[in-house]
Amino acid sequence: MKVTAAAPGKTILVGEHFVVYGEAAVVMAINRRVQVTVEDRKDRSLYIASDLGFSGTFVEDEYTAETGDVGGGTVLEPIKISAQTVLKAFEENRGLNIAVQSAIPMAVGLGSSGALAVATVAAVGKFLGSDLSEEEIVSLSTEAEKAVHINPSGIDQAISTYGGVIVYKKKEGITRLKTTSDIPLVIGNTGIQRNTGTMVDGVRMKRKQFPEIMNLMNAAANHVSRQFIDALKRDALNRLGEVMDINQGLLMAIGVSHEALERLVYAARANGALGAKLTGAGGGGCMIALATLDGRERVSEAIRRAGGTPIIAKKADQGVHCWIHE
Amino acid sequence: MKVTAAAPGKTILVGEHFVVYGEAAVVMAINRRVQVTVEDRKDRSLYIASDLGFSGTFVEDEYTAETGDVGGGTVLEPIKISAQTVLKAFEENRGLNIAVQSAIPMAVGLGSSGALAVATVAAVGKFLGSDLSEEEIVSLSTEAEKAVHINPSGIDQAISTYGGVIVYKKKEGITRLKTTSDIPLVIGNTGIQRNTGTMVDGVRMKRKQFPEIMNLMNAAANHVSRQFIDALKRDALNRLGEVMDINQGLLMAIGVSHEALERLVYAARANGALGAKLTGAGGGGCMIALATLDGRERVSEAIRRAGGTPIIAKKADQGVHCWIHE
Repeated sequence: MKVTAAAPGKTILVGEHFVVYGEAAVVMAINRRVQVTVEDRKDRSLYIASDLGFSGTFVEDEYTAETGDVGGGTVLEPIKISAQTVLKAFEENRGLNIAVQSAIPMAVGLGSSGALAVATVAAVGKFLGSDLSEEEIVSLSTEAEKAVHINPSGIDQAISTYGGVIVYKKKEGITRLKTTSDIPLVIGNTGIQRNTGTMVDGVRMKRKQFPEIMNLMNAAANHVSRQFIDALKRDALNRLGEVMDINQGLLMAIGVSHEALERLVYAARANGALGAKLTGAGGGGCMIALATLDGRERVSEAIRRAGGTPIIAKKADQGVHCWIHE
Repeated sequence: MKVTAAAPGKTILVGEHFVVYGEAAVVMAINRRVQVTVEDRKDRSLYIASDLGFSGTFVEDEYTAETGDVGGGTVLEPIKISAQTVLKAFEENRGLNIAVQSAIPMAVGLGSSGALAVATVAAVGKFLGSDLSEEEIVSLSTEAEKAVHINPSGIDQAISTYGGVIVYKKKEGITRLKTTSDIPLVIGNTGIQRNTGTMVDGVRMKRKQFPEIMNLMNAAANHVSRQFIDALKRDALNRLGEVMDINQGLLMAIGVSHEALERLVYAARANGALGAKLTGAGGGGCMIALATLDGRERVSEAIRRAGGTPIIAKKADQGVHCWIHE
């Protein structure tokens, strides 16, 4: 038997950084997916092949490279851990061939690792004959990621599992949001590396220096998220864009923007985007521009001219899903 | 007799736009000045020559061009009105030769017209044998400008008269602030024309659309001004810069920034500026970068490379002053 699971990546629409201090983040699944295919294997090892150019075999925790150098073991390890987590949950002790194809750029805040964990968990579960519930997939993939990331919030696993749009608040956890609009986006990758932890620490320092201002920025971010959610429910795309523009100013004020991000943001706005802002940690990484379905090509071209790598995307209502090949 | 008065231009350090809604604006006189020289004249007309390439004679309200076309009358009219306001106050009915030299770029928010009114009033007053008090100069030049601008706040006239730094609040009016630091700046002119009224209207519209968010932005701007004034009193230049950076984010959030402004702001920050933000109406016009005295050249060069016209400046503690030539 051969099973494939596909899980979407995500983008944060509004609320990054302020979510750390209790405000709502709105996260959307995008129509870029990771596919994980699982097949039977004679021995008890896990053979994993990724389209990143790495393949090799894990026997217990020992990695033997087939393609690429031995460093590939680090790249493939999260997949191994996700598969093992499901095998352990089902008290199965068997080998698997796992093949990974990803259309989500890595390490730019588009949730590639969450989607990979979710797709792996779903595929292995299905392969073992179980239709895992969405809650089980979120739970197992979050558990698996805990071995890799220090403290995953579970947002990435949830959005890759559910698809659509979710709202996350520290106190209230995850709420799924019903939306009808397509929410056409162009994601612009600055290509500039940033470290999420450093950015979060920078905001924390600014809060120490300017507590009153930062509290007011948080309160403003609270309303930004509310207004955004409200506009989302009403399919008011223009207003969504306006709220995103305000949000970008707040993010700049708390010190997490970057010249390259602004360049893409302004290029998008000047070329028909309804709104544009950084997404995720900031300081580099990606921005998103809200566009019309027809207008995305123009925004995409503008982002490219401004030095970014554009990804045309939109909301993916379908979360993780599996199919059996034969 | 021949009298010259020199009056400094100004730049808004923090608080623009938010001042409309009651928050404090901090305004600083800069060491760029307008000089107005007044001489006796046989007839009763006002002959005005400006280094902008216009000269001509006003007999009553009739303008006859000497240099430049008849449109020069519009450029020179505010000078005529300022002179007439003083002549009327002294119940004098006589002609004057008035020569104007300005080192303040016009119509970019650097207070050239306020400085021109102040210098004209002071020079004409002195010429008539009176040492006008600072309050009289502010009052007469504001009265004169009312004929030109619909509703001048009087801030520009005050700062050009007093020099140094003033704080302006709608409810409390003008307070002079004692400062010891040089406050070295580089002003960067984007060269992009903007209309102050349009920018102010845009903010008013955003307030209608997003009242809660905009109220919080105002509250944040209130703290920005407080923190700025506090750091100014303590000569804490680094902190001044940090507050300016936050302020720029707020200004972006309320929709008054511009790509060309951001470009200069980021170029300055990347080249040693302690902080940078737009100044004045936004949407084009000028930005300011706080620098060290030694670091201004580097910031200036960076602004030039980023497409702006830099002006190296610093606080001018001396306000308007006059001297008699013979």
